[in-house]
Parts: sequence; structure tokens; C-alpha cells
Amino acid sequence: MSMNSFGHLFRVTTWGESHGPALGAVVDGCPPNIALDAEMLQTWLDVRKPGQNKFTTQRQEADHVEILSGVFDGRTTGTPIQLMIANTDQRSKDYGDIAAKFRPGHADITYYQKYGNRDYRGGGRSSARETAARVAAGGVARAALKALLPDLKITGYMVQMGPHEIDRAGMDMAQITENPFWTPDATAAQTWEKYLADLRKSGSSVGAIVEVTASGVPAGLGAPVYAKLDTDVAAAMMSINAVKAVEIGAGMAAATLRGEENADEITMGPNGPEFSSNHAGGILGGISTGQDVVCRFAVKPTSSILTPRKTITKSGENTEIITKGRHDPCVGIRAVPVGEAMMACVLLDHFLLHRGQIGENQGHIG
Amino acid sequence: MSMNSFGHLFRVTTWGESHGPALGAVVDGCPPNIALDAEMLQTWLDVRKPGQNKFTTQRQEADHVEILSGVFDGRTTGTPIQLMIANTDQRSKDYGDIAAKFRPGHADITYYQKYGNRDYRGGGRSSARETAARVAAGGVARAALKALLPDLKITGYMVQMGPHEIDRAGMDMAQITENPFWTPDATAAQTWEKYLADLRKSGSSVGAIVEVTASGVPAGLGAPVYAKLDTDVAAAMMSINAVKAVEIGAGMAAATLRGEENADEITMGPNGPEFSSNHAGGILGGISTGQDVVCRFAVKPTSSILTPRKTITKSGENTEIITKGRHDPCVGIRAVPVGEAMMACVLLDHFLLHRGQIGENQGHIG
Amino acid sequence: MSMNSFGHLFRVTTWGESHGPALGAVVDGCPPNIALDAEMLQTWLDVRKPGQNKFTTQRQEADHVEILSGVFDGRTTGTPIQLMIANTDQRSKDYGDIAAKFRPGHADITYYQKYGNRDYRGGGRSSARETAARVAAGGVARAALKALLPDLKITGYMVQMGPHEIDRAGMDMAQITENPFWTPDATAAQTWEKYLADLRKSGSSVGAIVEVTASGVPAGLGAPVYAKLDTDVAAAMMSINAVKAVEIGAGMAAATLRGEENADEITMGPNGPEFSSNHAGGILGGISTGQDVVCRFAVKPTSSILTPRKTITKSGENTEIITKGRHDPCVGIRAVPVGEAMMACVLLDHFLLHRGQIGENQGHIG
Amino acid sequence: MSMNSFGHLFRVTTWGESHGPALGAVVDGCPPNIALDAEMLQTWLDVRKPGQNKFTTQRQEADHVEILSGVFDGRTTGTPIQLMIANTDQRSKDYGDIAAKFRPGHADITYYQKYGNRDYRGGGRSSARETAARVAAGGVARAALKALLPDLKITGYMVQMGPHEIDRAGMDMAQITENPFWTPDATAAQTWEKYLADLRKSGSSVGAIVEVTASGVPAGLGAPVYAKLDTDVAAAMMSINAVKAVEIGAGMAAATLRGEENADEITMGPNGPEFSSNHAGGILGGISTGQDVVCRFAVKPTSSILTPRKTITKSGENTEIITKGRHDPCVGIRAVPVGEAMMACVLLDHFLLHRGQIGENQGHIG
Repeated sequence: MSMNSFGHLFRVTTWGESHGPALGAVVDGCPPNIALDAEMLQTWLDVRKPGQNKFTTQRQEADHVEILSGVFDGRTTGTPIQLMIANTDQRSKDYGDIAAKFRPGHADITYYQKYGNRDYRGGGRSSARETAARVAAGGVARAALKALLPDLKITGYMVQMGPHEIDRAGMDMAQITENPFWTPDATAAQTWEKYLADLRKSGSSVGAIVEVTASGVPAGLGAPVYAKLDTDVAAAMMSINAVKAVEIGAGMAAATLRGEENADEITMGPNGPEFSSNHAGGILGGISTGQDVVCRFAVKPTSSILTPRKTITKSGENTEIITKGRHDPCVGIRAVPVGEAMMACVLLDHFLLHRGQIGENQGHIG
Repeated sequence: MSMNSFGHLFRVTTWGESHGPALGAVVDGCPPNIALDAEMLQTWLDVRKPGQNKFTTQRQEADHVEILSGVFDGRTTGTPIQLMIANTDQRSKDYGDIAAKFRPGHADITYYQKYGNRDYRGGGRSSARETAARVAAGGVARAALKALLPDLKITGYMVQMGPHEIDRAGMDMAQITENPFWTPDATAAQTWEKYLADLRKSGSSVGAIVEVTASGVPAGLGAPVYAKLDTDVAAAMMSINAVKAVEIGAGMAAATLRGEENADEITMGPNGPEFSSNHAGGILGGISTGQDVVCRFAVKPTSSILTPRKTITKSGENTEIITKGRHDPCVGIRAVPVGEAMMACVLLDHFLLHRGQIGENQGHIG
Repeated sequence: MSMNSFGHLFRVTTWGESHGPALGAVVDGCPPNIALDAEMLQTWLDVRKPGQNKFTTQRQEADHVEILSGVFDGRTTGTPIQLMIANTDQRSKDYGDIAAKFRPGHADITYYQKYGNRDYRGGGRSSARETAARVAAGGVARAALKALLPDLKITGYMVQMGPHEIDRAGMDMAQITENPFWTPDATAAQTWEKYLADLRKSGSSVGAIVEVTASGVPAGLGAPVYAKLDTDVAAAMMSINAVKAVEIGAGMAAATLRGEENADEITMGPNGPEFSSNHAGGILGGISTGQDVVCRFAVKPTSSILTPRKTITKSGENTEIITKGRHDPCVGIRAVPVGEAMMACVLLDHFLLHRGQIGENQGHIG
Repeated sequence: MSMNSFGHLFRVTTWGESHGPALGAVVDGCPPNIALDAEMLQTWLDVRKPGQNKFTTQRQEADHVEILSGVFDGRTTGTPIQLMIANTDQRSKDYGDIAAKFRPGHADITYYQKYGNRDYRGGGRSSARETAARVAAGGVARAALKALLPDLKITGYMVQMGPHEIDRAGMDMAQITENPFWTPDATAAQTWEKYLADLRKSGSSVGAIVEVTASGVPAGLGAPVYAKLDTDVAAAMMSINAVKAVEIGAGMAAATLRGEENADEITMGPNGPEFSSNHAGGILGGISTGQDVVCRFAVKPTSSILTPRKTITKSGENTEIITKGRHDPCVGIRAVPVGEAMMACVLLDHFLLHRGQIGENQGHIG
């Protein structure tokens, strides 16, 4: 119900704006006695933080996370974990023109119409800085998952930038950390580097597709209808700024398949059921199959560009705007760790829900 | 939190299985004094109900809806509205083989693993019959929207069947009700008719893409982060059986766009802001713009097909299965009214949430 | 959030009015594979149902409960359980005067002001008939508790009627079912019988105090702050019609105690910690201690009486009203099984929440 | 669902422990454009803060509240408001004995059993310091209520300390701020002063009853069943540490009344309905009547006393404990502003819920 919370038993409530003193998250419902400290969370935040290379915003934020509650002697206590990240680099001078005009493609106009106020220094609550809090909270989820489901592994990576898709035949997961785009295709990384450098110079931006995969998810998480695991994955990803679409498994392409192409055949393996393929993306009827959970989401290009665009002012006058400042030419890059964090939160939440209602899986095969 | 509920202030809880005596929905939070009777709901159910032509399952269900509570003297009372639909055609003989084997692509295997039980006569809670309850509940939402937002209009239609997309240049909304596919492209309807007839004869099935548009949505519904209007639209659509992807506005294609292509320019019109295009799908920063809210979702092909497929039994033996019975060759067709119903529920819910927190929009332009 | 739901993981949504065709409850989140049939639930409903002796309303309702979903082959499936109870005795002729006037002490006036409508034939949604749905849902909770916590036992009984308290020295739990008042004090039952017979003849009514005790509750259920076990017990009981106060353990009398009188001393027993007394009512810091959970609630007298009372009409005219009809002279009597049902729902819900977040108790003593 | 949240549309999530660096609350759902600054909140915190006289704990806490988000240019933005209060006085040396032993009457034993950890320096999450966050959040609610319902006034005061009740005939609301007990009975204040000074010297403690009244509450807030206004008031108060009972209106005494004594008669006054009395405590059938909303709650004596009490250690050995340290001889005193804060949160939440579902009251009298 809460407008700024996500999750059921493992529930994250984030707070803070781009130009306030700090932002953060309260993480409620984390199991107790999970090893946790700020350094563990910092690892994930360092992945997301801005200014790390020329392809992300040059805003300089340490994104230093503090744990203010819920951890004692290096372990979670089972009570709320408050994570706080100070905002340190808030150069307001860059944002002058924005105070009077609504930036097309940004939340400015709708935010103002609804709330009747707007922090003209930045995106306020709509700023992508909110995702730092998600990454911190996701770090808590990962710590708990490590203890509860040690085989679980979440991997996010870019599979498309603008019109340029990766070649899935050339995927090598070891490559993900070897390029500034978190892509498993080293060849694509080279193409993208040139493509994005040109775009950046021209003051433009471009969209991207991020894929997040979770392996080691046990069968049985989710429910047949509204609490479908895919419903919550979709909601989690769509709740990220700038995301316009979410796919599970075959995704939109499922529309083009025939039944015999789409349904993943089942055979009995040494450790239980095996599937010949994974069009389902690891989720059948809302419940995990034990295969990799696979989702993809599309991130639109940032609307902060140097090309003049038509817009209006608060007083309703037609005008033009260009958005200077320190922006990401492809925000999809920094969405990779955010998508991973959301996946971690959803999986932990569903594990706890499952344990609550069911205990352990009730049906055994073989 | 509840596994079988959807919505915040306008909250729908559905219940019932494919082969139980009845199914239905409790609708909680509907505003009082809305004109409502069973006939109004029946109109929407008649659109969804099976057996209407050769392209949908031949299961014969009257889908007769009864209102058991929450309406007095033809008006809603503001208390829970119980909607009940009896199951009448439950020919169990068709389902014999399913008791022992898991149908690939269906929820059978995950459902059994989680719950340790399975109603072998049909899909149990995973059956698409659950969507009848959604359509009934959506009818309540529409009745309320008619009173509260009389200009709002929700239109669902098919835009792709298998590999065959419609030609958007040839869209004519008046055509939607003139063909069995709810498509606005009369030429596509002809192509699809032959294509699907062939598929049906061969015992196969195919996926589809459904688009749902809402016009007349006031600016201001939604919130910047987790309670984004698009988050709830995505969750609503992804919660429907067989849906594998959801797009808002430009959707997955947003990834291919540059900033200057994607951001919809704004000009001042006689009645307020106007947009040069609608890549945003009517939602900016999680909040409605006043433009049409546009979403699309992909429905996978039903996995009930006549081609033998490899699977396993409960005892873990490898085997094959073909799924006879009365099935939809393209379940996407019947998903059209379901998508409309979910859109109605989400929009009413967000209207009530907005009225609760904000009252009326606080910012005025011009 | 939902206005007509109760519980978190085990969530009950009730629906229906006093004079509609039926009422009932959807029970969501029940663990699967719990033995359950309508007969088991009927046992509890028969305890609550009206017309069983001269001290309860003479409305004749079979209160026959049907299970419409969520149970297959005599076991819960883990999906929503719809419980329906038809209304059969709705003699509207008794209620004529009520249509025009607001009955003092009843919900009539507030209900009308809020919703702008009122089912003049009875209390509508405010009728105590709603509690039949609670008792049915409580029966589901008890069935699950029987499987999950077999030592748990819930006992409700009356401890005060009007000014007449029971003598706790003379409590004999075996007496509870031996008198029409569900009281463990046989002597009090005799006093009350004469007292209430006189009241009934004079067309008056009286309040009562009900105590509900749960033994066999494991230590560890609840949480330190908002999800305190006592918070949910208090909310559960206060949500019952006509309840005006809830006490846990020493209750209001805790105000009169000094620290050394109130704090229950702890010693080590053969099976773990033991307490010298139970002022805490089995709950310390919001979490169960393993002692009996003890709550009491006060039920006001029904406001349907034969003495003329000043009131007003819808049009705002001063007038008087007497409420004829079939009413309980002491509704507290029939609140006993309702209180038991609510306790069952709360305890199951908290057991599932605890299992979800914690798994098993993390701290061991000794 | 969240274990540390309270409220529906206006939702408060608190975090922090007695001996962590800070504690606070995230307030979500506050309407936008409400005048708010830290100073306004500080006023309320100063009322609750410890060490103000000899009758409250000598822990020295400035209880200085900072607003970290959700307020811009002195007005709420409609996004989450993070309130932070640093812990400054955490003298751990006082708490030595507690590390090994469970204090009777405190949450120590249940907390440890559940979570398997315990911050031996203080009560951890169970500490009454959590209530500082409630008071801060309540200050936000009051600021919003001031704008939305300017006639609303919330007043809390002590009506009983140990065995000593106030004389209601001698109530003078102007006296409340004139004595250290927040009591409207100046004579009682004198009696209590001597009584409590003696208790404090002897190292004992005592319980109390606090009454909270809200005048100017419009008719129509609440709902007939689970979302009853009294349900949420009861839950709010019971969620406060050390509270063991909650009464609405006549409360427990309603049990002793007959129907003609209890039902408040209604007459038509110049501004709408008037009631001859207020046994209902301003709530009929779960919905506010427009009369004063009146609740009372009992606070048990603190269990930190100097008399040796039997207890056990973590390893299960019998022992004794006395609790030195800086404690309140009557924690009921400091519960007064906390009760007021909770009432403010509940009333604002129900006002927003009402506005969401209903808009404005639908029924008009006269």
C-alpha cells in the first residue's frame, strides 16, 4: 500500500531525493543472524556509483553507505535495518533552466501537476539516485540469500545498446566485469564503446536492454495467480526509473511461437526434473521451476540531451529546452546492478513467503 | 500481501478453480452509490466466455455472474461486493492422462512440487477460468469509473498473432468487434482466420500480443517510485495466466531509441499541455500525463497441443504426453477482455489512491 | 489495507450483509494439505448460531456453511478457500420503523452519513451476522493449527455479565459447555440465568466480558513493535461488532500494580523457562512467552431495546424509537465462539509469519 | 504486513534501537504542500523527552530531530519524509548484569528466544526509545491535520496512577501542562507527586492509565468491520511498549451497562446530530459520529526495579536480578505524548482512506 515500499515479508522502503542531505532505505523483515556489515553493501554500491568512467554521469558521489540500525556485532538482529547514503555532490548551478521549464521525457511535468511542487535542483524523488538505496537494500537481500540459499547466483548484464544486440553465441560471463557496459560479449563491448562515445560527444543518449538471470533458485517459489513470481519480478523491474518493458523467458517473442516450440519438454535427471529449453524463463504458472529465472527489461534513453526540444513553462508558455549537466548517455549501464538488486529482493521475499505458508515443498517427484 | 488479491484501495480477491462448484471475486473498496447490477457485469463476461466461435475452447460455460453482496437497490453500498460464477461444464473425461503426467508448459509440475496436491481434472487454481473473476471485477471498476471519470475509455485489441502483426496504418477501432480476434485491422483478421484455422486443425497453438489503451485518464495518477502507475499496470498484466512480457508505450523498442527520438515534446494546447508523440505510453516518471495510457502484453501459446511432448510422471519416469480436450488455439484472443478488466481495476485504484493522498492535483499549468 | 480483510499471511476477507442472499469469507494463505471439510467448520458454526436457547436471538438461521473452493479430496490445496453461508430467515416485517429512524447505539447514523445508503431491513454490513463468517474462517485456522501446533488449545468463556463477575476460585473449564452462557462458573450461570431472564422480559439488554485463552502457544510468535502479537489480538477482538475494550493479561488492572507485583518471575523448569505468574498474559515485548495467551474483551449491550429512546430521522426531525424484533439480550454470549475464532486466526497468522522470517526460534536457553 | 510499519495510506515505518547511533521514522503518504519544519516536530519531542524532571528517566537525550527528505522550501513534497534522531547518551556501564540474565517483565527472554541475539546494552528494538520516532511521525500527522481538519484537537492526559484515579468532576484541561504528570486534576497531581516520590526512592515503579481525546473529528471516518476506526485506535495504542489494555468510550465498563444506559440518545442540533452522552467514545459501528473520540490505555509499571527478582540466565541457571540504571518510576507519564501521536496518525490515515474511497460523506441529515 505504501507508495515507497517494495516486497511483502522482506520489505524495502526507500526515501530521499537527488538534492536532499541524504537518501536511503529501511529494510524490514530480514531474517536474524545474517552476517552483514557496511563494507559488504559498499561493494555493490561501488558497482552502481556514478563517475566511474566516461560513459556514466560525472556527478561525484562517494555513495558511502552507513548502517544505522538492525545490525549488532556484525549480524542482523531481525529488526529494521536503516541504510543511509549522504548526498555530497549537489552542484545546483547546472540545473538553472529546469526551474522554469518542464524537461520533455522527464517526470517534471507530471510530478508538478500531481504534487504542486518540484525541487528544481534535480529530479527530486524521481531522480535515478533513488536506485542507490535499492542497491544497498539488495545487498542486504544478497547477504540473507547467501545464508539461506547458498547456491543462488544473480547475474545482470547488458544485451542490447540502441540498435546493437549482443551475439548470444559469443556470450562469456567472465567478460561482464571486463568492460564498462557489463556485457558478456567482448565484441559487442568494442562496438558499443565507439558508438556511445560518438553519441556522448553529440550530446545525445540511447536506450538499452538489461538481462538479469538467477541460477540456483529452488522450485516452488511463487503462486499461481496474483503473487506469481513473475508478477513481482515484473513489478520490481518496472518500478525502476526509465524502464518501459519487462520480459520473462521468451518474453514478447512468446507471441511468435507455436505451442510445440514454446513448451519446455521435461525429462528426469539425476537430481530431479530437467528441461530441454527455458522459454518459460524459469517460471511456470507463476512458480519457479528450478531452472534459471531469466528476465529482461528495456531502459529508455535519458531525456537529458543537448538537442533543443519543444516544451512549456509552468505558466503555460511554449519554449525550448536543452538539458546541460552531468548525465549518463546510456543509463541502462547503471541499471545493471539495480536490476540485480531488485531480483535479489524479490527472490528473498518469495523464499520467506514460501517458507511461511508452505514450510518446505510438499510434492516430491520420483 | 495476500496471494490472491490485487489492488490497494480498490482491492480484488479472486477464488475458485477450474473444476470446483464455482469461482468468483470479492471486490473491496468500491465507492458507494455506483449504479450496478449483474446484467452490467454479464455484458463483459459474455465477451470473454468460451465457446463463442471455433477459435476458442469449446467448453460450454454460461459464465453467469451473481452479485451476492455489496449492492442494494441497484447501487453499490461501499461494502464488499461478492461476485460468483458457477462452473457448469466440467467434463472430466477429457483430462484422464493429465492425472499421472505433468503437461510441459503448464503449471502442473511447479504447482505439484509446491503444494503437493493437484486437481488432475484441470488446471485447478492455475486455470484460465480464473480470468472470468477478473472480468467480473473489472466490470465493477468500469461502473465506478463511469461515474467518477466519465471521459475514460478502455480499449483492448490484438495487434499480433504468431508472426503476423497488424498494419498500424490500417487500424480502425470500429473493426474490433467485427472479427473473432478483437483486432482493429480487418485485413489482418482475414489472414489470421486462415492461419489459425490451419493451426487448430493440426492440433497446434500460437502466441499473441494484446494492446490495451485507456484514453481520458487524468494527469496525476501514480507516484514516482514503487507505486508507479506503470508498475501496477505491469503487475496487473503479468499476473494474467500465460503472459510473458509487458510493455508501456515504446516498450522494448525504447532500447533502440535515442533521447531526441524518445522524449515526447510538449506544447501548450487549448485544454492544457499537449504532446507531439506518445513514446511514454501516457506515463512519465510513474505518473499519468493525460495522454492515452498504452500497454501491450505477450501471451504465450497454450501448451495443450496434440503433438507428443516429452515429460515425466509424478514417480519420475520419462514418458510422452499429448493434451487432448477443449482448448484455445490462441488464448491471446480471450485475453483481450481480461487485459481491459485489469486496466480498469488499476486505473480506479490509482484514482482512489490519488484522491486519498492528494485530493485534487496540486499543480496547475498556465 | 483492504477494509474487509484481517491477517497478514493467513488472510481472511469477509463479505455479505444481514439481509442479502448469503455471506461468507475468502481465506487466503492457508497451508496446503490440511484435512478440512464443511462438517468440521459446521461444528464451530453450530456453537455460534442463533436461536439455540431463549437467551439468544430467535432468528432462525441454519448457518449452513459450504466450501466452494480451495479444498480437494478432503485437504486444503493452498489456494483460496471460499466459505459461503446462505441467509435464510430474513423476516423484514420486524424492521419497519428502522427505515426512517436511526437506532441509538447502532451503526445506523454513522453508516448512513458515510455511505449515503442503508439497508433498512437490518444492519447491513454492520450486522453481527458477519461474525458467522469469522467463525467459519476460524474453523479453517483451527484445522491448520491442529496440524502445525497440535498442543495448542483455544478456550473462550464469559467471565462477567452486567455487574455479575464469576468467582475465579470456582472456575471449572468442564462447565463451559454445560450452561447457555459458556461460563466456567456453575454458580454464576445460575445467577445469570435468572438475571438475564428478567432483563429479557423487560425488553432490556446487558453487556458482558469474554475471556479467550490459548494454551500451547510456542514462545517466539510476534515482534517487538507494530507487529506485536498483542497488537494483532487487540485489533482482532476490537474488530468484532459491539466490542469496546480489549485487555491482555492483567489488562487495565496493570495500571494499579507496582513493578515487583507485575513482573512475572522466571525459573528454569524441566521443559524450559517457567513463570511464577502470568500478568503478561503470555506476551512479553510483543512476543509470546510460551505461557497461556490471555485476552479479555468487553461487549456492550445490544442497543435493540423496548424502552423508547430519543433519536432523529433522516430528514433531521426529533422522534423516539423502540426496537422490536428478534435480538440477543446479551450479545456477549454469542461473542464467545467469535473471540475464539479470531484468536485462532491471529495465532496461525503469526505462526506463519514467524516461520517465514525466522524459520525456527534462533535462541535456545539452557 | 511490514513488522515495523503502522497505517494504511499514511504509513509510518520506524527503525532504530536504544543503543544504536540513531533511530527514526519514514513517513510515507503524507499529503503535499503541508507546512513542516524540524522545529515544529521538536516541540512534540520536547514534551516526550527524558530527564525533564525527577519522575522520568535521567537518561540525557536531546532527542533532536532532523528531516532528511520529503520537505522542500518548508513544505511537504508528498514523498517520504525521513525523520532521524541521534542517540547521544548511551552509558553502557549501567547495563552490565543484563547481558547474562533475562529481566522479568521485559522483552529480554522472548526477544532472545525468537531472534537468538540481544543487544545487552539496552532493550534493543524493544526499548521505549522507539516511541520518540512515533512522536516525530505524529508531529507530521498533526501538521497535516492542521491543514486538512483545522478544528481537530488531540489531548492526552493521565487519569490514573497506581490505585489513584483522578476525580473527573475536578478536571480542568488547562491544568494538564501545569504538573509533571499531564493530569487535568490538580489535586490528584499533588497526591501523585508524594506517592511517586516515595515509590521512586524505594526503587519501585507503578502503572498508569492514559486517556486520549480527539475533538473536531468529522463524522464518517472508519468502516463497519475490520477497518473500524476503533480497531485501528486499539492497534495503535496496543502497539506502544508496556500497554496492556485499550478502551474506547465506556470501555470495559460497557459490560456493566444495560442497553438503555449505554446507547447514546440522538437529537437534532443547530449543526447536525447531537448526542446526550458519549458511551460510544465517538465511534458507532466502527465509524466516527462527530463526537469526541475517546480512548484510554493502561501502561504497566516498568519492570526495572531495585527489588531482587527471580530469573534465569541464557544457559538456564536460576538466579536473581535487580535492575539498576536510569528508569522511569511511572512510564505512563511519558506515554501521554506517545498516545497523542498515535491518535494523530490514525485519524489522518482514516481521513485519507475516507477521502480515497468516499470523497465526501454521501449521506446528509436534515
